[in-house]
Amino acid sequence: MKKKRAGKPVPKETDERVRRSKETVLAATYELLTEAGLGGVSVDAVSARSGVAKTTIYRHWPSRSALVLDACSQLGSKREAPNTGSLKGDVTVLVTDLARRLRTARWAGVLPSIIDAAERDPELAELHSRLHAGLMGAFNLAVEQARKRGELPRTQDTSHLLAALVGPLFYRRWFSREALDERFVQSIIESAVAKLKP
Amino acid sequence: MKKKRAGKPVPKETDERVRRSKETVLAATYELLTEAGLGGVSVDAVSARSGVAKTTIYRHWPSRSALVLDACSQLGSKREAPNTGSLKGDVTVLVTDLARRLRTARWAGVLPSIIDAAERDPELAELHSRLHAGLMGAFNLAVEQARKRGELPRTQDTSHLLAALVGPLFYRRWFSREALDERFVQSIIESAVAKLKP
Repeated sequence: MKKKRAGKPVPKETDERVRRSKETVLAATYELLTEAGLGGVSVDAVSARSGVAKTTIYRHWPSRSALVLDACSQLGSKREAPNTGSLKGDVTVLVTDLARRLRTARWAGVLPSIIDAAERDPELAELHSRLHAGLMGAFNLAVEQARKRGELPRTQDTSHLLAALVGPLFYRRWFSREALDERFVQSIIESAVAKLKP
Repeated sequence: MKKKRAGKPVPKETDERVRRSKETVLAATYELLTEAGLGGVSVDAVSARSGVAKTTIYRHWPSRSALVLDACSQLGSKREAPNTGSLKGDVTVLVTDLARRLRTARWAGVLPSIIDAAERDPELAELHSRLHAGLMGAFNLAVEQARKRGELPRTQDTSHLLAALVGPLFYRRWFSREALDERFVQSIIESAVAKLKP
């Protein structure tokens, strides 16, 4: 089915200009986020940094939260579930990858400001919840596949398993600030998966 | 050994007035922290809320961080290590107690703002590190006692054990925002301690 367009067709070069302007705004938002956390991001600041007018910004994003959500969309949403054929294989890929990203990705320095805001602001709590769902998407898929293969007992609460896998990494990154090295990652996987065996 | 006092002895009623004024300032600081996170706390705001002059506040605390640290001192620092005679018994007491506090204590809503600030501000990173040490003090003691009783293999990295015990709780409180119920707490303890058995 063809989409209907209201009014005249938009010329190609306008499309391209809009796309570039949106990209500039998102890049500026992300920059501000990583420099100063959520507290440093206002539509004013984004407009000043990007050189794009506030009215244009509001045309594409109805609120600061919508803009922040879009700018953060790279946070975990593009991970695909691995397919090693075993739960332990899959979570080893995923936890290792998460540890690497927690060590290096700039969003790791941004997330606490979003979690802080989520404590008091329902709109940002919703944003955080979406970011979190994106981050955990591949983990959930891997667990679902393991369930289908009969690798997980029916009584297993998979949310406990995910907390046991991911929680210790988050703990080291943001709370104890200890190293997220390979030995730690292996030990956490062993400990979380050990309980599953009969 | 008696402490030396410089100059004249301070009259009792002055001592009492100073004590009350300090208490008022700490209470106002804690109130502001729980209402708006660290971002809501400045010496100006504390002075306005408490009615205590800024000069008086600076006489007792050299910086905002010192004030925040003092106001947060109830965060975990007063827990004593339990003494049930076994590692599993001790950590059950400690993890259950932590889960209860994460569910109810007002500092649980404040900590993310301190962690966020710690990402960019070395003085607040130092503050967070002290708060974290206070929170984990009793856990470290329990693990040390278990080591002395021969309950922990010499090769056991106890920091892995602590991350496996505490990380999943932090994960549920601040990241996935799921329930910290008794079933979860039990499951996490089983999973973290299971690996230790030969």
